[in-house]
Amino acid sequence: MRARVEIHLKKGVADPEGENVLKALKLLGFSSVGGVRSIKVFEIDVAERTTAKTRGAIVEMCRKLLANPVIHDYRIKVEGGRASTPRR
Amino acid sequence: MRARVEIHLKKGVADPEGENVLKALKLLGFSSVGGVRSIKVFEIDVAERTTAKTRGAIVEMCRKLLANPVIHDYRIKVEGGRASTPRR
Repeated sequence: MRARVEIHLKKGVADPEGENVLKALKLLGFSSVGGVRSIKVFEIDVAERTTAKTRGAIVEMCRKLLANPVIHDYRIKVEGGRASTPRR
Repeated sequence: MRARVEIHLKKGVADPEGENVLKALKLLGFSSVGGVRSIKVFEIDVAERTTAKTRGAIVEMCRKLLANPVIHDYRIKVEGGRASTPRR
Protein backbone atom coordinates (compact mmCIF):
# COMPACT_ATOMS: atom_id res chain seq x y z
CA MET A 1 0.00 0.00 0.00
CA ARG A 2 1.02 3.57 -0.44
CA ALA A 3 1.08 6.02 2.45
CA ARG A 4 1.69 9.73 2.68
CA VAL A 5 3.33 11.25 5.76
CA GLU A 6 3.16 14.98 6.30
CA ILE A 7 5.78 16.23 8.71
CA HIS A 8 5.21 19.76 9.91
CA LEU A 9 6.69 21.89 12.64
CA LYS A 10 4.86 22.19 15.94
CA LYS A 11 3.21 25.47 16.77
CA GLY A 12 5.74 27.91 18.17
CA VAL A 13 8.76 26.23 16.60
CA ALA A 14 10.74 28.54 14.31
CA ASP A 15 10.43 27.78 10.58
CA PRO A 16 13.54 29.31 8.99
CA GLU A 17 12.77 27.86 5.56
CA GLY A 18 9.29 29.39 5.55
CA GLU A 19 10.63 32.70 6.84
CA ASN A 20 13.26 32.86 4.13
CA VAL A 21 10.77 32.02 1.40
CA LEU A 22 8.53 34.80 2.75
CA LYS A 23 11.44 37.24 2.71
CA ALA A 24 12.38 36.27 -0.85
CA LEU A 25 8.77 36.59 -2.06
CA LYS A 26 8.53 40.08 -0.53
CA LEU A 27 11.81 41.06 -2.21
CA LEU A 28 10.41 39.81 -5.52
CA GLY A 29 7.47 42.16 -5.11
CA PHE A 30 4.76 39.83 -3.79
CA SER A 31 3.50 42.32 -1.24
CA SER A 32 0.23 40.44 -0.63
CA VAL A 33 1.99 37.48 1.00
CA GLY A 34 1.41 37.33 4.74
CA GLY A 35 3.07 34.13 5.83
CA VAL A 36 4.71 30.94 4.59
CA ARG A 37 4.98 27.60 6.33
CA SER A 38 7.14 24.78 5.05
CA ILE A 39 5.99 21.17 5.28
CA LYS A 40 7.81 17.99 4.30
CA VAL A 41 5.95 15.09 2.75
CA PHE A 42 7.11 11.54 2.10
CA GLU A 43 5.19 9.15 -0.12
CA ILE A 44 6.10 5.65 0.99
CA ASP A 45 5.27 2.30 -0.62
CA VAL A 46 4.90 -0.45 1.96
CA ALA A 47 4.35 -4.14 1.20
CA GLU A 48 1.56 -4.54 3.76
CA ARG A 49 -1.97 -5.69 2.95
CA THR A 50 -4.08 -3.77 5.42
CA THR A 51 -4.45 -0.08 6.17
CA ALA A 52 -3.86 -0.75 9.88
CA LYS A 53 -0.58 -2.58 9.31
CA THR A 54 0.60 0.06 6.85
CA ARG A 55 -0.24 2.84 9.30
CA GLY A 56 1.50 0.95 12.11
CA ALA A 57 4.67 0.59 10.04
CA ILE A 58 4.63 4.28 9.09
CA VAL A 59 4.15 5.37 12.72
CA GLU A 60 7.20 3.30 13.61
CA MET A 61 9.19 4.91 10.76
CA CYS A 62 8.21 8.36 12.00
CA ARG A 63 9.32 7.49 15.52
CA LYS A 64 12.61 6.00 14.45
CA LEU A 65 13.64 8.22 11.55
CA LEU A 66 11.32 10.65 9.85
CA ALA A 67 10.12 12.98 12.60
CA ASN A 68 11.79 14.63 15.56
CA PRO A 69 9.22 14.49 18.40
CA VAL A 70 10.62 17.65 19.97
CA ILE A 71 9.73 19.86 17.01
CA HIS A 72 7.57 17.85 14.59
CA ASP A 73 4.00 16.70 14.35
CA TYR A 74 3.06 14.23 11.69
CA ARG A 75 -0.03 13.16 9.85
CA ILE A 76 -0.36 9.86 8.06
CA LYS A 77 -2.69 9.11 5.20
CA VAL A 78 -2.86 5.62 3.77
CA GLU A 79 -4.06 5.54 0.18
CA GLY A 80 -7.69 4.57 0.23
CA GLY A 81 -7.74 5.29 3.97
CA ARG A 82 -8.49 8.41 5.97
CA ALA A 83 -5.99 10.89 7.40
CA SER A 84 -5.14 10.11 10.99
CA THR A 85 -5.19 12.85 13.60
CA PRO A 86 -1.84 14.57 14.07
CA ARG A 87 0.39 12.73 16.53
CA ARG A 88 2.59 14.35 19.11
CA MET B 1 -6.76 33.34 1.49
CA ARG B 2 -4.56 30.40 2.22
CA ALA B 3 -3.03 28.27 -0.50
CA ARG B 4 -1.03 25.09 -0.46
CA VAL B 5 1.62 24.40 -3.09
CA GLU B 6 2.99 20.92 -3.53
CA ILE B 7 6.28 20.82 -5.35
CA HIS B 8 7.33 17.40 -6.50
CA LEU B 9 10.01 16.09 -8.79
CA LYS B 10 9.09 15.26 -12.38
CA LYS B 11 9.00 11.62 -13.40
CA GLY B 12 12.48 10.37 -14.19
CA VAL B 13 14.27 13.01 -12.12
CA ALA B 14 16.49 11.53 -9.40
CA ASP B 15 15.21 11.96 -5.85
CA PRO B 16 18.32 11.64 -3.63
CA GLU B 17 16.41 12.57 -0.47
CA GLY B 18 13.82 9.87 -1.07
CA GLU B 19 16.53 7.35 -1.95
CA ASN B 20 18.46 8.08 1.22
CA VAL B 21 15.36 7.82 3.39
CA LEU B 22 14.64 4.46 1.74
CA LYS B 23 18.18 3.29 2.43
CA ALA B 24 17.99 4.42 6.06
CA LEU B 25 14.61 2.72 6.56
CA LYS B 26 16.00 -0.55 5.16
CA LEU B 27 19.01 -0.30 7.47
CA LEU B 28 16.65 0.21 10.41
CA GLY B 29 14.94 -3.05 9.53
CA PHE B 30 11.87 -1.87 7.63
CA SER B 31 12.16 -4.56 4.98
CA SER B 32 8.61 -4.02 3.68
CA VAL B 33 9.38 -0.55 2.31
CA GLY B 34 9.52 -0.50 -1.47
CA GLY B 35 10.02 3.14 -2.33
CA VAL B 36 10.08 6.66 -0.94
CA ARG B 37 9.39 9.91 -2.74
CA SER B 38 10.04 13.30 -1.16
CA ILE B 39 7.68 16.21 -1.74
CA LYS B 40 7.94 19.81 -0.57
CA VAL B 41 4.86 21.73 0.50
CA PHE B 42 4.45 25.43 1.22
CA GLU B 43 1.37 26.83 2.92
CA ILE B 44 1.09 30.46 1.88
CA ASP B 45 -1.23 33.18 3.18
CA VAL B 46 -2.12 35.68 0.48
CA ALA B 47 -4.15 38.86 0.97
CA GLU B 48 -6.34 38.29 -2.07
CA ARG B 49 -10.11 37.97 -2.02
CA THR B 50 -10.83 35.52 -4.80
CA THR B 51 -9.63 31.99 -5.46
CA ALA B 52 -8.63 32.97 -8.99
CA LYS B 53 -6.45 35.87 -7.86
CA THR B 54 -4.86 33.78 -5.13
CA ARG B 55 -4.09 31.00 -7.59
CA GLY B 56 -2.70 33.52 -10.07
CA ALA B 57 -0.36 34.94 -7.44
CA ILE B 58 0.81 31.49 -6.39
CA VAL B 59 1.49 30.43 -9.99
CA GLU B 60 3.64 33.55 -10.37
CA MET B 61 5.49 32.69 -7.13
CA CYS B 62 6.16 29.17 -8.39
CA ARG B 63 7.50 30.52 -11.68
CA LYS B 64 9.71 33.10 -10.05
CA LEU B 65 10.93 31.34 -6.93
CA LEU B 66 9.42 28.13 -5.61
CA ALA B 67 9.73 25.63 -8.45
CA ASN B 68 12.44 24.84 -10.95
CA PRO B 69 10.61 24.11 -14.23
CA VAL B 70 13.37 21.77 -15.39
CA ILE B 71 12.84 19.29 -12.58
CA HIS B 72 9.66 20.23 -10.70
CA ASP B 73 5.93 19.95 -11.20
CA TYR B 74 3.64 21.77 -8.86
CA ARG B 75 0.07 21.53 -7.69
CA ILE B 76 -1.81 24.41 -6.12
CA LYS B 77 -4.77 24.10 -3.81
CA VAL B 78 -6.49 27.21 -2.58
CA GLU B 79 -8.30 26.68 0.71
CA GLY B 80 -11.97 26.23 -0.09
CA GLY B 81 -11.00 25.73 -3.73
CA ARG B 82 -10.11 22.64 -5.76
CA ALA B 83 -6.66 21.34 -6.58
CA SER B 84 -5.50 22.51 -9.97
CA THR B 85 -3.95 20.07 -12.41
CA PRO B 86 -0.17 19.83 -12.14
CA ARG B 87 1.59 22.48 -14.18
CA ARG B 88 4.70 21.95 -16.24
